[in-house]
Amino acid sequence: MNYTTIQNIDSLSKWVKQALKIKKKPLKNKKLGKDKTLGMLFFNSSLRTRLSTQKAALNLGMNVMVMNFTNEGWTLEFEDGAIMNSGASEHIKEAAEVVSQYCDIIAVRAFAGLIDKEKDNAETVLSGFIKHATVPIINMESATAHPLQALADAITMAEYKTKHKPKVVLSWAPHPKALPQAVANSFLEMMQLQDADFILTHPQGYELNPDITKGVTVEYDQNKAFENADFIYAKNWSSYKDYGQVTNSDTSWTITAEKMKRTNNAKFMHCLPVRRNVIVTDEVLDSENSIVIEQANNRTFAAQLVLQKILKTKLDPKKATKKSKK
Amino acid sequence: MNYTTIQNIDSLSKWVKQALKIKKKPLKNKKLGKDKTLGMLFFNSSLRTRLSTQKAALNLGMNVMVMNFTNEGWTLEFEDGAIMNSGASEHIKEAAEVVSQYCDIIAVRAFAGLIDKEKDNAETVLSGFIKHATVPIINMESATAHPLQALADAITMAEYKTKHKPKVVLSWAPHPKALPQAVANSFLEMMQLQDADFILTHPQGYELNPDITKGVTVEYDQNKAFENADFIYAKNWSSYKDYGQVTNSDTSWTITAEKMKRTNNAKFMHCLPVRRNVIVTDEVLDSENSIVIEQANNRTFAAQLVLQKILKTKLDPKKATKKSKK
Amino acid sequence: MNYTTIQNIDSLSKWVKQALKIKKKPLKNKKLGKDKTLGMLFFNSSLRTRLSTQKAALNLGMNVMVMNFTNEGWTLEFEDGAIMNSGASEHIKEAAEVVSQYCDIIAVRAFAGLIDKEKDNAETVLSGFIKHATVPIINMESATAHPLQALADAITMAEYKTKHKPKVVLSWAPHPKALPQAVANSFLEMMQLQDADFILTHPQGYELNPDITKGVTVEYDQNKAFENADFIYAKNWSSYKDYGQVTNSDTSWTITAEKMKRTNNAKFMHCLPVRRNVIVTDEVLDSENSIVIEQANNRTFAAQLVLQKILKTKLDPKKATKKSKK
Repeated sequence: MNYTTIQNIDSLSKWVKQALKIKKKPLKNKKLGKDKTLGMLFFNSSLRTRLSTQKAALNLGMNVMVMNFTNEGWTLEFEDGAIMNSGASEHIKEAAEVVSQYCDIIAVRAFAGLIDKEKDNAETVLSGFIKHATVPIINMESATAHPLQALADAITMAEYKTKHKPKVVLSWAPHPKALPQAVANSFLEMMQLQDADFILTHPQGYELNPDITKGVTVEYDQNKAFENADFIYAKNWSSYKDYGQVTNSDTSWTITAEKMKRTNNAKFMHCLPVRRNVIVTDEVLDSENSIVIEQANNRTFAAQLVLQKILKTKLDPKKATKKSKK
Repeated sequence: MNYTTIQNIDSLSKWVKQALKIKKKPLKNKKLGKDKTLGMLFFNSSLRTRLSTQKAALNLGMNVMVMNFTNEGWTLEFEDGAIMNSGASEHIKEAAEVVSQYCDIIAVRAFAGLIDKEKDNAETVLSGFIKHATVPIINMESATAHPLQALADAITMAEYKTKHKPKVVLSWAPHPKALPQAVANSFLEMMQLQDADFILTHPQGYELNPDITKGVTVEYDQNKAFENADFIYAKNWSSYKDYGQVTNSDTSWTITAEKMKRTNNAKFMHCLPVRRNVIVTDEVLDSENSIVIEQANNRTFAAQLVLQKILKTKLDPKKATKKSKK
Repeated sequence: MNYTTIQNIDSLSKWVKQALKIKKKPLKNKKLGKDKTLGMLFFNSSLRTRLSTQKAALNLGMNVMVMNFTNEGWTLEFEDGAIMNSGASEHIKEAAEVVSQYCDIIAVRAFAGLIDKEKDNAETVLSGFIKHATVPIINMESATAHPLQALADAITMAEYKTKHKPKVVLSWAPHPKALPQAVANSFLEMMQLQDADFILTHPQGYELNPDITKGVTVEYDQNKAFENADFIYAKNWSSYKDYGQVTNSDTSWTITAEKMKRTNNAKFMHCLPVRRNVIVTDEVLDSENSIVIEQANNRTFAAQLVLQKILKTKLDPKKATKKSKK
């Protein structure tokens, strides 16, 4: 099995329960990963993903090999049939097949370039690994998706929700730089797998990929969206329509304590790193209602659940199914 | 407990004895670090510290996650209340709290910038981690201190001294680039915790932070300082007065065999890396009296002692106290 | 023992047999490397070598410390007697002696600069480590040799050969950038240790170091060389005569399906990374006769054999000899 998109989750509620079990006894399956190797390939910067995924693997007794592909390896070519007489030294075909021989699982981070929408939507790097690798692939944030983050978000909301069907708001917030839509996309997809009163709010022009927002309630009035909310998830993304552009830096969209007052004492969430006093004010981020640190903590257990599922499937597909039926 | 400054040493003589015990049987406490994770965060280059601290952790059976923060992670903001709409992507508050969830101990290297004395004295990076992390912090060289080096120096001197109260000279030596005062500072502080005839020698204008040199004998005549010395510790640092400037490149301060003749057959020490024939001549560095390699070796046992103490305190504070009373 | 050149192989046929045994049960000697540490020092990019050598060490239960020397450590000086008042911060003498104290085995990658033939032939970096380190050294590709690759090549040919004395052709192929001669050199030296009908083919002006090609059949007509071949090994290298220059980019040397037809259904080999449709066409590389992926796989077992031999020699020289006599 791969874990490259929220669609790989067969039952979100089950996954969340399993992750919370792991959180209670993170070392319980220490033998599961014995003599298994996780290769972590980074094409972009990473703090939480880098350390939490490593930690998850260590909790399972796995070996980890970390590689910053861009500066430690060779420039990759992704196009089939390319005549490689200029930049790239190695084709994804060889790279993925070769790494598959040294690793039992490959985790890849490759952000959106935010220049060519079609190329980003094609998920050039991640798809290349999925296509050519011969071992399971984990998405550590690709051009359009960050499913490990969304899984951690689901775990966090399960821990903090006080009613069966909470009101959850994903709110755009300003940011000086152009950021990918990956976190928002996966959060949206994950929310569609659970029972919630879910609202997406952002300025005009910041509509996400319509394939992903199909059926999602969009409210352009942030204040209205916040009313009675139980969770406010803040995140910036650059325009999808004017692809990769920052068309709005309206600081009136910053999450403030005053806005939080409109909510039902909502918990504040963000995937981090967060720009203080741009995305959200210190007052909100430092308040008791901010659960961003716990959210980051749950990255470990999201990753560990995914690794555990892959290891069980890999080691003995039948056993894995049996166990998951219990 | 943290180990961020020489002040964290309660009894230098005890620590040195304990480190020498570890050196004899470095794998004796292999189980102590089981399932514990050391996070090593580098904001600057490192050879000895990088490898010896890792080695120390491995000797204790710990997991190690190494991260070159500057190019692998996000640019950090350290100022409280900052409106983060320009360079930095993440505040130290979140970074330190988050990493604390993945690691049982965090070790940090962040050199002096040598431009803003006040900022360096404030130890922006290290202090940020101390303030916001929720796990013990180890200083792998900060703006003003290098206590792991000074502890290794104390261990080395204990091994090589032939009398109870040796004469120890810390001598400035020339260097083409502006270097921090961290190593000299911690060496000075460490020397004040032991019985020695200690002299600091450097050209006029190279006075160190007066708060640290209070009570220390300063001799501007290097030749005079060397007389009858048992240990010569050479080190360059840039001016503290004309902060971060190289105001003197007088090669007459280079440590030579001729100068060493004035000593009592002194051992030669340096923290490394050392510029040959600038700081010290080949003749001295390659002589039998040079103990710089053993000094570097002792970095492992200094780090291991610190890790061991932290692990014992963390695992069971009472037990740690009992054990150290034996 | 070191493994820095093909000359360190006492019996290639025995080594190949031993490596193939390891390949069958790679975890059989998991205890051999317990509490032993491999330090991997990279002065250049690496994918296969980085991951396969790490994997080999993990298979033996070793600890691994990986360091990108160029940007994580200090610039090294290699000249004896140098007055180090400009670029380099540390002399190889100290660096090698110090790292030897933290590691039981040191593996080094340092490519040819391709500017100064004499300097490259002197193997400045590798020789520096060999001279000054006090632990065994493994060459992970140096200026003039890549013996781990050649050993993997020998293992791969042993697996795929269908006759005792196959015809093996090492063919130059075009490449847009100047590449070192290291892979070709070690392949040539390795071929001289086995019974084969070996031919080297390249354009005029691409003659390799005559000390290495002494006794080797050179055929300037690639088509003729390919006739009835059992193995075609493609590789680019820059000119040795016009040192480091690309004097020929004749695409008629690209390995094509048409050329492969002249062979005896030959297996296609390349050390990777390979430039598709420049070195070799997709058709050949994607054909059943291409064994480049298996060749890369065997890098693990080549490295593991070398590590295993060193560990056995180190742990108990007598026992190692005895065991190898069995």
